[in-house]
Amino acid sequence: MTQRRLGVWFIGAKGGVATTATLGYLALKNQLAGPTALVSQLPEFAPLELIDWNGWVIGGHEIRETTLLQEALRLAEDNRTFAKELVLSCQEELEALEANYRWGTLHNVGPTITQLACPACRQEQGTAAEAFARIQEDLREFAQANSLEHVVVVNVASTEPPLQSPPAVQTWEELRRLIDQPACPLPASTLYAAAALDLGCSYINFTPSLGSSLPALDHLAQLRSTRHMGYDGKTGETLLKSVLAPMFAKRNLRVMSWVGHNIFGNMDGRVLDDPVNKQAKVTSKDRLVRHILGYAPQTLVSIEYIESMGDWKTAWDHVHFQGFLGVPMVLQFIWQGSDSLLAAPLVLDLIRFTERAHRAGHVGRMEFLASFFKSPLGVEEHDFFEQFRMLRQWAGGLAAC
Amino acid sequence: MTQRRLGVWFIGAKGGVATTATLGYLALKNQLAGPTALVSQLPEFAPLELIDWNGWVIGGHEIRETTLLQEALRLAEDNRTFAKELVLSCQEELEALEANYRWGTLHNVGPTITQLACPACRQEQGTAAEAFARIQEDLREFAQANSLEHVVVVNVASTEPPLQSPPAVQTWEELRRLIDQPACPLPASTLYAAAALDLGCSYINFTPSLGSSLPALDHLAQLRSTRHMGYDGKTGETLLKSVLAPMFAKRNLRVMSWVGHNIFGNMDGRVLDDPVNKQAKVTSKDRLVRHILGYAPQTLVSIEYIESMGDWKTAWDHVHFQGFLGVPMVLQFIWQGSDSLLAAPLVLDLIRFTERAHRAGHVGRMEFLASFFKSPLGVEEHDFFEQFRMLRQWAGGLAAC
Amino acid sequence: MTQRRLGVWFIGAKGGVATTATLGYLALKNQLAGPTALVSQLPEFAPLELIDWNGWVIGGHEIRETTLLQEALRLAEDNRTFAKELVLSCQEELEALEANYRWGTLHNVGPTITQLACPACRQEQGTAAEAFARIQEDLREFAQANSLEHVVVVNVASTEPPLQSPPAVQTWEELRRLIDQPACPLPASTLYAAAALDLGCSYINFTPSLGSSLPALDHLAQLRSTRHMGYDGKTGETLLKSVLAPMFAKRNLRVMSWVGHNIFGNMDGRVLDDPVNKQAKVTSKDRLVRHILGYAPQTLVSIEYIESMGDWKTAWDHVHFQGFLGVPMVLQFIWQGSDSLLAAPLVLDLIRFTERAHRAGHVGRMEFLASFFKSPLGVEEHDFFEQFRMLRQWAGGLAAC
Amino acid sequence: MTQRRLGVWFIGAKGGVATTATLGYLALKNQLAGPTALVSQLPEFAPLELIDWNGWVIGGHEIRETTLLQEALRLAEDNRTFAKELVLSCQEELEALEANYRWGTLHNVGPTITQLACPACRQEQGTAAEAFARIQEDLREFAQANSLEHVVVVNVASTEPPLQSPPAVQTWEELRRLIDQPACPLPASTLYAAAALDLGCSYINFTPSLGSSLPALDHLAQLRSTRHMGYDGKTGETLLKSVLAPMFAKRNLRVMSWVGHNIFGNMDGRVLDDPVNKQAKVTSKDRLVRHILGYAPQTLVSIEYIESMGDWKTAWDHVHFQGFLGVPMVLQFIWQGSDSLLAAPLVLDLIRFTERAHRAGHVGRMEFLASFFKSPLGVEEHDFFEQFRMLRQWAGGLAAC
Repeated sequence: MTQRRLGVWFIGAKGGVATTATLGYLALKNQLAGPTALVSQLPEFAPLELIDWNGWVIGGHEIRETTLLQEALRLAEDNRTFAKELVLSCQEELEALEANYRWGTLHNVGPTITQLACPACRQEQGTAAEAFARIQEDLREFAQANSLEHVVVVNVASTEPPLQSPPAVQTWEELRRLIDQPACPLPASTLYAAAALDLGCSYINFTPSLGSSLPALDHLAQLRSTRHMGYDGKTGETLLKSVLAPMFAKRNLRVMSWVGHNIFGNMDGRVLDDPVNKQAKVTSKDRLVRHILGYAPQTLVSIEYIESMGDWKTAWDHVHFQGFLGVPMVLQFIWQGSDSLLAAPLVLDLIRFTERAHRAGHVGRMEFLASFFKSPLGVEEHDFFEQFRMLRQWAGGLAAC
Repeated sequence: MTQRRLGVWFIGAKGGVATTATLGYLALKNQLAGPTALVSQLPEFAPLELIDWNGWVIGGHEIRETTLLQEALRLAEDNRTFAKELVLSCQEELEALEANYRWGTLHNVGPTITQLACPACRQEQGTAAEAFARIQEDLREFAQANSLEHVVVVNVASTEPPLQSPPAVQTWEELRRLIDQPACPLPASTLYAAAALDLGCSYINFTPSLGSSLPALDHLAQLRSTRHMGYDGKTGETLLKSVLAPMFAKRNLRVMSWVGHNIFGNMDGRVLDDPVNKQAKVTSKDRLVRHILGYAPQTLVSIEYIESMGDWKTAWDHVHFQGFLGVPMVLQFIWQGSDSLLAAPLVLDLIRFTERAHRAGHVGRMEFLASFFKSPLGVEEHDFFEQFRMLRQWAGGLAAC
Repeated sequence: MTQRRLGVWFIGAKGGVATTATLGYLALKNQLAGPTALVSQLPEFAPLELIDWNGWVIGGHEIRETTLLQEALRLAEDNRTFAKELVLSCQEELEALEANYRWGTLHNVGPTITQLACPACRQEQGTAAEAFARIQEDLREFAQANSLEHVVVVNVASTEPPLQSPPAVQTWEELRRLIDQPACPLPASTLYAAAALDLGCSYINFTPSLGSSLPALDHLAQLRSTRHMGYDGKTGETLLKSVLAPMFAKRNLRVMSWVGHNIFGNMDGRVLDDPVNKQAKVTSKDRLVRHILGYAPQTLVSIEYIESMGDWKTAWDHVHFQGFLGVPMVLQFIWQGSDSLLAAPLVLDLIRFTERAHRAGHVGRMEFLASFFKSPLGVEEHDFFEQFRMLRQWAGGLAAC
Repeated sequence: MTQRRLGVWFIGAKGGVATTATLGYLALKNQLAGPTALVSQLPEFAPLELIDWNGWVIGGHEIRETTLLQEALRLAEDNRTFAKELVLSCQEELEALEANYRWGTLHNVGPTITQLACPACRQEQGTAAEAFARIQEDLREFAQANSLEHVVVVNVASTEPPLQSPPAVQTWEELRRLIDQPACPLPASTLYAAAALDLGCSYINFTPSLGSSLPALDHLAQLRSTRHMGYDGKTGETLLKSVLAPMFAKRNLRVMSWVGHNIFGNMDGRVLDDPVNKQAKVTSKDRLVRHILGYAPQTLVSIEYIESMGDWKTAWDHVHFQGFLGVPMVLQFIWQGSDSLLAAPLVLDLIRFTERAHRAGHVGRMEFLASFFKSPLGVEEHDFFEQFRMLRQWAGGLAAC
């Protein structure tokens, strides 16, 4: 197999998830890390011949003034997750990547995110159309400079405030006109998605921001014969919900209430501490219990920024359910995981599966990736194991070719 | 549909599970209880036309001197589960059943269980062959007296001590010879199973006792064109294991250790407090994590008798796993459920599905019932959702007929 | 000892706490309940010769149309706490009390509480001065009709919204003038407190409403040679905080953050679900960790109304602290208690201790009762055991007389 | 204040606790660590003028072939507690201490501990009398070589199996005769204690081994005008018990059962995995709930060796208690702490307080140190806060001089 040159472009390229994914990629490439936590490394996906850990070129958009090395060291020091030694052993490669980063757009990201941006980044802002053009220029330059066969764009930036009423645009033409309007209501995440898809890049939205969820974006993907998927990575508490809710359903145990409290202290947490930004996240987390059970128990989801927790997201869930003869019983769980370390391998998995879908000529939404998302686009199934079966089925189909 | 007369014969007929199942049956029949916790009431099984809540005749073997009413009232008073009012509203029917109970056998049940037996029961003991004959006589008389079409025998008695080395008997003839030996090593649960199957009854082992797990019992079922399944009902902590372990597997998260502590205080707990009896249970609970993951993390399962807990089994599980880059994370859960109320509806489900299998002419082990058991006979699959799919597939096959 | 006639007047007289306290009193009087959960029954308080369980006359103000019996039965049915049988065995006495209840005032209780009031109660409302006069009339009539030696008034009504800026009134004269103003800003709880103290009754505020916390109320108590204390009963999560925070302090372990989530579903919970009413409660719960530790870790307290929980308040607390060499560690606790059953015995204790203080001629705030309150009036000490020592010291002083 | 030369002699000198205490001492001396977790650094003990972090000479007995540096690095790498950088910045001082270690005795330490000993250590073993003589020689040499004013000997070695029946020796003479017997039944910990006290050293037993708990050892301390205390450091779960049990007592809440499960994976855990060694520990942990409550609820304490946990001891405690009207409620806590990092600062505290007691001329048991121990010698009080008050009172007395 001759080596493919894959471009990976992160939105929020020096945030916790992108930094960890980038470091993780280098660790895997240099055989400093094992396959743990990588779905794409499961033996059952071996026949897919997914792209290996060589030949990736990583770059992206960022709004803060910092370096990847600095961010990786800070993560190591603050969070008791990966070791500083690992960062230092990849130092040269991390520094080499610095050439690949560009200032991102702040269009409609809300005041909490805007505040994080450095002056240099703020200076470059303009209209939505200008941002759109600049993103495309950045992507084109990245692809050319690195002779890339294909670029996968992944949104791992902080969560934007949700739109009160998303514009009812069905086609790429309508969307394009919206971008050209002086008061374009689209958030940054959607500008990035449109810019990427229009150039034929694959696009993945790992956040609860709007991204490619409007029908017009799917239309654009179809027009350009490219693909996309989202949204909101399913990393911890929600993963558990999508595993436990089906158990209650299949045992006919009636969930009366499901309460989930999440605390964590990384930058994502700081942004989500703004109630406006938090709303998007909570809605995305809350929906699926209802979907899986087929009825609506009382649910409560909270996400709170507790600084001392750093990257360690801790969730306490209290499930109050009725058993036989109406007797109430309780299941509680406590999940203590590092947010970035849960997200990063899934991001790497998504890149590999998406690259494979690109090779297979898949066009439009990649529903088979549903198991990676809290709110999978175009998919009503929220049972994790049913979603996983969709992935396996897709893989089986490809491997059979 | 003309009404079928179904016989249900419980081993351990006035214990917590059988009492709750019997009361629950009456509550369902009298429309005092809803479908909650009954798998067989899920809409997807409606096409099966399972037997409804009329026309069951319940009886069984018991070793203690007590009445069903007394036991039901005690459960209500001691455990804050179902209400005393429910028991009283079924009082007449509970009392009417008293005619259907016979003294059970104490053959090789170990000293802890033997101690529970009343003098009248102890007096009736004899050799294994005598016990076998007496069980059959009891079952025949029950069927005749009540003009039953079919009898399902369900073992819900206290857990026997495990045999050091189960006899290597492959055929019914060999087993029969063993029964006739003066020092027959078989435990009561296997005598009951053999007696039932030999008469063409269906047999279900809801406990971790030996029951029908020897190949010779399956041979007997084949010879008599009847059916059986077991063993050890999957009600709480183990159910969660069979749901959560697949999640770790499919996300490639490496489980390093899985510790589970169970505390409860009902009679089953008192018997399990004897380390000899406990062994069978712990082994059954411990096995499946390894099976599902495909490797062997350190596991620890304990069951402790804590009197104040009564029927409320509380389990704390601590799962220590490695995430990406080898970083250790933790999932803990706490399960607080009423043991009898979790078991009873599954027992009713098993009876209904088994009666349906009898009508369909199923012979031998009922592997499609795997999702109900911790150690399903003849089934290597321990993933709950895969097991559930087996049930659905069987149902689909029958419904299609 | 000749029998004393003690009057007990509850504000919120048919709410969960008052109903449980009333039922509990009757159970104790009729020897249907033991001393468990009653601080005043500890052997160390025996020398105090507290008033026994005879000769109490109970009455109060209520705003909903219901009977005590009805409320007690509902509590028994909805909550799996005390048994219906207990209620029925006190039925006659519960019904006999009905004559002793009067309509309460809705003055400044906020819309959420006002909504709960029945039409008959709403009709009786008037100005603050009228309410004040009516309350006094009710109390006088109660004392005369029952030939009471002394009346203890206890506020166990739902939490009022906090005043933005409590009026700066230092003396009874100023307060009296405020009551007479057409737009009197005082909430109902303070009108009750003033009316009671002015008549020489003792007053206890078991809620986080304003009650007697203004200096003018203490002035009034001094003028009338009576006594009062509050506020906000320390029943569950906060009790634990006042026990655990001193441990961290005395071991010099540095608390970085303390997160507490409370869920419950009784009427108090429904009222607290209004963010305005909730504020008073959260503030009261939040303060003491800081006080005990002497520095300010990040704290978060939430109270959420989850209907299915009924009276069962469940709290999850996550304490993130630094150990030696700065290493972060975690203590979590989960508290599952019945709210009314935790509060009711403390209310009975407070009545007994207060009656004793009345006999001893105590005037003004009863600081020695600090251990019963989240925010004890006039007391800076929040360490539970230090507070308990204050109670013991007071008792020792009295017993020595 | 002229500088004092204090000798600190650890039994188990390169185990987790001693290594952490030694590293911690160096970190404090070099101002690389703050006062967190050090009781002796609380402002209220400032008037005591405790010895500061200069002028300590550390040495000890060890049975394994290793270096302090190696152990410290291993702790850093395996456990995600303190950073490797901290170890490296103290490297020279750690290495300089190596001259101060001697082979310990294996007399009656049981097979599990004996197995850990290196060949060189095993070779030096002899009779109890020889071991006793050698220990004294080691201590004398240490004191002379370093011109020490006083030596505090601290036992932090692995837990020995308990004696079935401890010898009934009341006086030092009787004990001395026992040591000279060929089949001396005394365990190593008692030989160390006797050797140390006989030389006038102070002795602290931080483990549940026998140590100085026999009356004869106290007699020896009196004869030599020296002092001792023990036993079994109160670091985590038991600390919580000694804080929470008094809360239940003072609120008259009736504890029905108290279950505690501890899991951890350090060397201490490996030794405790031997049921014989575990017994001593469990007994020590179990006793105090009963003592504090004044009655005997059902209790269960387990300690399990779970390798993946390393030094992180996790305890789950389930307290089942009766509230008012007999209603059962539950408190659960989960404690996640690093075992060595919880123990080490207490060891440093004990050394400082003991050195102060030496200066003050205290002779015999140091009961005022009770708050540091699970089973404080000569002290019936188990309430942590009462024990802390004893420490404060002693300090007050000294400061007043």
